[in-house]
Amino acid sequence: MDLSWEHFCQNHFDFPGLTLSLDTSRVGWPRPEDAPAFSALESAFAAMQALEAGAMANPDEQRQVGHYWLRSPELAPTSEQRAAIEASHEQIRQFVGEVHRAELVGSTGKPFTQLLLIGIGGSALGPQLVANALGGSSNPMQVHFFDNTDPDGMDRVLEALEGQLPQTLVVVISKSGGTKETRNGMLEAQHAFLKAGLEFARHAVAVTGVGSALSETAAADGWLERFPMWDWVGGRTSETAVVGLLPAALQGLDWEGMLDGAREMDAVTRIPDVRQNPAALLALAWHTLTEGNAQKAMVVLPYKDRLELFSRYLQQLVMESLGKEQDLSGATVHQGLTVYGNKGSTDQHAYIQQLREGPNDFFAVFLEVLKDREGVTIDVEPGVTSGDYLHGFFQGTRTALAENERASLTLTLEQVNAFSVGALIALFERAVGLYASLVGINAYHQPGVEAGKVAAGAVIDLQGKSLGWFQQNSGRAVTAPELAQELGQAADTETLFRILRHLAANNRLTQSGTGPEARFQVG
Amino acid sequence: MDLSWEHFCQNHFDFPGLTLSLDTSRVGWPRPEDAPAFSALESAFAAMQALEAGAMANPDEQRQVGHYWLRSPELAPTSEQRAAIEASHEQIRQFVGEVHRAELVGSTGKPFTQLLLIGIGGSALGPQLVANALGGSSNPMQVHFFDNTDPDGMDRVLEALEGQLPQTLVVVISKSGGTKETRNGMLEAQHAFLKAGLEFARHAVAVTGVGSALSETAAADGWLERFPMWDWVGGRTSETAVVGLLPAALQGLDWEGMLDGAREMDAVTRIPDVRQNPAALLALAWHTLTEGNAQKAMVVLPYKDRLELFSRYLQQLVMESLGKEQDLSGATVHQGLTVYGNKGSTDQHAYIQQLREGPNDFFAVFLEVLKDREGVTIDVEPGVTSGDYLHGFFQGTRTALAENERASLTLTLEQVNAFSVGALIALFERAVGLYASLVGINAYHQPGVEAGKVAAGAVIDLQGKSLGWFQQNSGRAVTAPELAQELGQAADTETLFRILRHLAANNRLTQSGTGPEARFQVG
Repeated sequence: MDLSWEHFCQNHFDFPGLTLSLDTSRVGWPRPEDAPAFSALESAFAAMQALEAGAMANPDEQRQVGHYWLRSPELAPTSEQRAAIEASHEQIRQFVGEVHRAELVGSTGKPFTQLLLIGIGGSALGPQLVANALGGSSNPMQVHFFDNTDPDGMDRVLEALEGQLPQTLVVVISKSGGTKETRNGMLEAQHAFLKAGLEFARHAVAVTGVGSALSETAAADGWLERFPMWDWVGGRTSETAVVGLLPAALQGLDWEGMLDGAREMDAVTRIPDVRQNPAALLALAWHTLTEGNAQKAMVVLPYKDRLELFSRYLQQLVMESLGKEQDLSGATVHQGLTVYGNKGSTDQHAYIQQLREGPNDFFAVFLEVLKDREGVTIDVEPGVTSGDYLHGFFQGTRTALAENERASLTLTLEQVNAFSVGALIALFERAVGLYASLVGINAYHQPGVEAGKVAAGAVIDLQGKSLGWFQQNSGRAVTAPELAQELGQAADTETLFRILRHLAANNRLTQSGTGPEARFQVG
Repeated sequence: MDLSWEHFCQNHFDFPGLTLSLDTSRVGWPRPEDAPAFSALESAFAAMQALEAGAMANPDEQRQVGHYWLRSPELAPTSEQRAAIEASHEQIRQFVGEVHRAELVGSTGKPFTQLLLIGIGGSALGPQLVANALGGSSNPMQVHFFDNTDPDGMDRVLEALEGQLPQTLVVVISKSGGTKETRNGMLEAQHAFLKAGLEFARHAVAVTGVGSALSETAAADGWLERFPMWDWVGGRTSETAVVGLLPAALQGLDWEGMLDGAREMDAVTRIPDVRQNPAALLALAWHTLTEGNAQKAMVVLPYKDRLELFSRYLQQLVMESLGKEQDLSGATVHQGLTVYGNKGSTDQHAYIQQLREGPNDFFAVFLEVLKDREGVTIDVEPGVTSGDYLHGFFQGTRTALAENERASLTLTLEQVNAFSVGALIALFERAVGLYASLVGINAYHQPGVEAGKVAAGAVIDLQGKSLGWFQQNSGRAVTAPELAQELGQAADTETLFRILRHLAANNRLTQSGTGPEARFQVG
């Protein structure tokens, strides 16, 4: 690996307007122009231009892909779309203003100080990232999440909200309105409000598509407000839509600053010149490192606690966009880019041992943040601060990896604020889109996620059939294979065994014996 | 993949005494006995037996590896070790009793209700896992963590503790006492107490080795208590030492139940018969899936919010133990086992798309928890609960992966409690040890982590030199290459550039211009 100063200067890219710089000196190329995919960038830029102009970039669902319009409404292909985006911003401003001024209060007249966000995947990961990056205990509202259908998990959140439901605003986020986890979370929350003697509708807000089941529930029950989601915004790129902006605004975070950062990043990353475009540099570097063929994983190491959730956010954005069986021509390619990581220097104490000595099957993306803290600092040694150590560990790890020929990229931010977080989100959105073009796949659909949902639906159905059978045969104790015979579903014996065991553990069946020979009955 | 009931029955292993079962039916073997490494298990069992009997299993540091003795002190090779373990339990019982009964109180006489744990790596990951798995807002003490040297990160924790420092007990955990992140966290906490007019020593407890710098500070300043760490317990296997037990006890969690679970698991995983030993089954399955050669990553998917941090805990335990350049014979092997994951069903909305369609470069470890919640539940549809959906998504994803020939293992727990968490920890500790034997590496050292620390120390030194130069040359503005020349360290120009930029961002130097040509000066 060339570690010379000259090589570094050739590979250091400054974007002062974005308060960001990018270092590609440890990618393994002399210069970006030497990357194998360099000439393919031209068509990637063209595809991106078509997408931004309103092409049907998600052919599976016959949808446009419009997340870049969210922060530049004037670029939306129709005036209706532009107006819808602008109106959503105004709606957020109005609604949040009323909440913060306590003009809009809970059903018992108390101001809202707690926010319970119910959503999963793209409807939770962005708000979680932003709350962690920008929020704090002095915000006007503290946010809590139902981001799964785990009843115990929801009970814990409700336990933390004990006594505070009168001050709790619930935001339910689901584009289709049909996401079961979110629907279940909404029903569990509704039940908790009911138990507390509170009128749920006067605490509830929906963020959903026009005409969705959730939208209809919200309308019928008279919820406080309904905010729009549009079919041209994908879940994993919805952080700059109402999905992300409304929770940020309610917490008192600078949601307009986030939009500014994303818009500025978009402007720069539209430039069809790799040296001026950090997203193109990232995409080209990824392509070089993965050999265009998923040969390496991306380990994301932010040296800043506030960015600890960034890798988790990127897991969805990157892996759902790039993990594809087929390329655009229909050939089987099994593309992907695995993402993991938490934060430095903490992770040095976890898995740097393997990164340095184990298989060279990854590259690191370091996120360096220059500003250490607000206010004054103390010395931990003469002339040395805690922040100097954080910086020292970042450089030390980067060096230790390079010594063993482990590649890395380094993104340097001046500080973590609304602008830089918005910029980071937009940077990776664009890099993912460009990389998808370089490897010839569609980044905007997710054909592989249906199978699991369908199979889950079949499990729920089989459970219903089983419970029905037990009601009809209340005296009988059966094994899973016996019940499968009874139901005429011998191929599903294992699924049934698992269903029965789960029902028994929750006192809805009685079990005798353990393992495959266990017998189950009612009562 | 054989999905027949007969195959499942051959690969379903029940351990009722451990309230756990393990399913290896989707590993791709007919039976465990058919695994390529089956016959190598014998010597793995023998190596484990030698380790438990007190062999120098960590030759780098000339140390024994004694984490299994922690929960069975009678097995420790010397009576001194046995007595030390038993005394530590008694010390925890005494100290925590005094805290909970408010016999021991803060410097202003208030009872302790908040716990600030300062530690990193093995001194934080276990306590974080356990606090998340077993803790709740009704515990007698709420735990907070300094697990890094990020000053802003520490400020946020202190902000959350605003006004509560008089009720805060600080537990500083560092075996060597020389871990810089922990030392810095201790100094930052000390400063916060000082600012609040509180006597830090009367809030502070040390968990550290005899004679360490931390031990001496604690003794000299009259801290409340010192608890032992022994050189025969490695950081990543210290959760059942004072490191994990003391924080759990302070939070009011059943730390003795954790020890019970670990002890029971140890007893079962000592059995040199693969069908009776879940750790041997895991190790053998990993070996089959990775081809004994890091061919696949392990995606850990607990379907239970409380176990969300388990993958992060395992990253250290597994990757630091197994990520090794050399095998026991000194041959270069680059072994490892990459771990990532968060929780199901949430992660289905993040990266199941890639797992199902992308590269087949992983296997999944599903953690199924049978018991849904405490207390009564509601129906979200007639006869269907939120927990049924969680279960349905678990089965659905497992099926969807199998359809595409993606392998998985499933661990089923009755419930998440102190016993099962202790058992899980012990299970993976043993599986890692056995797997290391199968691939012929040492699981108990970490030769690759020193390089980063040494390089970080060099950065701190170079910063000191630079600041010294600027003090001597207060009128001069220099670029990084110029200063490198001045200091006679031209090879470190890039390191120096990063140091100067970081100092400037924190107002300790003035910067003009950006990028490699930027000039820096004092004042």
